Amino acid sequence: MSNMNKQILLKSYPEGEPTAADFEIVETAVPTPGDGEILVKTIYMSLDPYMRGRMSQAKSYSASAQIGDPMMGGGVGVVEQSNNPKFGVGNYVMSYPGWQQYSLTDGTGVMKLDPGLAPISTAVGVLGMPGLTAYFGLLKIGQPKEGETVVVAAASGAVGSVVGQVARIKGARAVGIAGSADKCAFVVEELGFDACINYKDADFAEQLAAACPDGIDVYFENVGGKVFDTVMPLLNDFARIPLCGLISQYNATSLPTGTNFLPALMRDMLTKRMTLRGFIISDHYEHLADFLRDMGGWIASGQLKYREDIVEGIENAPEAFIGLLKGANFGKLLVRVSDDPTRN
Amino acid sequence: MSNMNKQILLKSYPEGEPTAADFEIVETAVPTPGDGEILVKTIYMSLDPYMRGRMSQAKSYSASAQIGDPMMGGGVGVVEQSNNPKFGVGNYVMSYPGWQQYSLTDGTGVMKLDPGLAPISTAVGVLGMPGLTAYFGLLKIGQPKEGETVVVAAASGAVGSVVGQVARIKGARAVGIAGSADKCAFVVEELGFDACINYKDADFAEQLAAACPDGIDVYFENVGGKVFDTVMPLLNDFARIPLCGLISQYNATSLPTGTNFLPALMRDMLTKRMTLRGFIISDHYEHLADFLRDMGGWIASGQLKYREDIVEGIENAPEAFIGLLKGANFGKLLVRVSDDPTRN
Repeated sequence: MSNMNKQILLKSYPEGEPTAADFEIVETAVPTPGDGEILVKTIYMSLDPYMRGRMSQAKSYSASAQIGDPMMGGGVGVVEQSNNPKFGVGNYVMSYPGWQQYSLTDGTGVMKLDPGLAPISTAVGVLGMPGLTAYFGLLKIGQPKEGETVVVAAASGAVGSVVGQVARIKGARAVGIAGSADKCAFVVEELGFDACINYKDADFAEQLAAACPDGIDVYFENVGGKVFDTVMPLLNDFARIPLCGLISQYNATSLPTGTNFLPALMRDMLTKRMTLRGFIISDHYEHLADFLRDMGGWIASGQLKYREDIVEGIENAPEAFIGLLKGANFGKLLVRVSDDPTRN
Repeated sequence: MSNMNKQILLKSYPEGEPTAADFEIVETAVPTPGDGEILVKTIYMSLDPYMRGRMSQAKSYSASAQIGDPMMGGGVGVVEQSNNPKFGVGNYVMSYPGWQQYSLTDGTGVMKLDPGLAPISTAVGVLGMPGLTAYFGLLKIGQPKEGETVVVAAASGAVGSVVGQVARIKGARAVGIAGSADKCAFVVEELGFDACINYKDADFAEQLAAACPDGIDVYFENVGGKVFDTVMPLLNDFARIPLCGLISQYNATSLPTGTNFLPALMRDMLTKRMTLRGFIISDHYEHLADFLRDMGGWIASGQLKYREDIVEGIENAPEAFIGLLKGANFGKLLVRVSDDPTRN
């Protein structure tokens, strides 16, 4: 075991798009667990769009990241030292290590993982927060009925890929939106969506309309911006819009000018009697047991597939994160911080 | 019985604010009921903001009014002739006569009224569509909990007055918004709201914030525009926004320009995990029995009060309707088309 702990600190709150200069890589001594604490060695760090929201002093649903602290976030690791009877050395765990090689925790919110049941990396992906976000938002807010049309953007990503596949399992039609022809091909051919449209195509709006001949009953919103504007006219009466993210807006430094579309949205919400509901998955962990049971079954039966995009080395996390906000990843984005002994 | 039927026809689709020139008063022969039909003599016509939406060819939740037809709408009347065994001559009924003195119907959607239970005019007011709109929107979408703060605009009107009083009955704090000091005084002193703010006051935003020291948990939206902009920053996490109307926007001919506030709304919906749901009460008539039972009880016990603003004579309906869209009415707006024999 190394005696040093490589960490990636937040150096400054970015104005607009984060750059490498907003992060700082340092090495500190590996900490020693106190009473009741465990020392976790990070294997995978999860990179997720919501982290951009923390890199700001704007009021939001969770505290801002502090300048000079490691970036926060979930991850998967192995217990190296334990002063807590609930965790033994060698246990694999999902915890909130932040962007560093070693972290301490008193075990709050830490989940033990069984590598025999599923690859440990899935605990921060398809079987973790992104998967639960998709499951809860689609089934509890979107409530797709058989034969309805569900549209989701970032369709090859951690959340979107699950939304479309679960929609299909429930008998709905799934239409994805993604940022490249490769991603769209994967979404249709590997994940089994009924269609997938590249939002970068000049005729995106026409293609989307053609892929949704009966309109859109559920739009799972995780991007905002131009994609939302294009979806709006296609929404059916009584459409449901679960809203879990707005990745296209996270780097915005000011509101756009021109036409104010707020009154148009309100008018559509009224005349089409639609429901728009924002949610953050940490408010809904009571659905975890149902989720793990259902998702575990769908993965085991081959009905639900997932793709990981694994970046090697903690040093590359800032660049990977900056790319994530631009859609550069292809699948659930992870950073491998140390070897995964459970993977061949 | 007169042999002529005075009608108010839609003459043109208004551009912006309707004017007297968009209506035409004509007299035609009183029609004769066919097999299964009844002839209803109108006593009260209901004037409601939603009617502005019908005076347009824009796609909406119901068909446009046709040029040359009588304006549509609900009303209360008495059966003058009957070829339908379900209705006897002299029965009082709530029906959809449109803006005219006499109308035919086969009885579909027509409700017999018992003048001994409540004044017949209430069948298009507190015990009718506006009351049910308030009841359903507040209780099924807003779901106020004890001690929460409910805000409603047009607080002295047919819908708003019920929203605030039912909120108080359910143990919530009720804050109204209205367009004059007189209306606000009535809302607080007669209806028992905790506070009421005049949106025409220069310091409206400051007054509203002061009246909602714990923020807003339910905003019952029926006006839109500036009031919504002022409410937005005060909304709490997990706020619910039932949306049943946007009266401030009905006469708008184009979208405003300047800053586009749509992304700001979406960001707020996400970070505060709020729910916005548009609804039209005709989709929810299955709640009518519960509504009549609860409201009937609250009115009988004096817990729920209502105010009517009665304009005399069908000829004055266009002017009264134009005024309604500007907030000129004070209470539920009715036109008395013929004598009400049940009222002293």
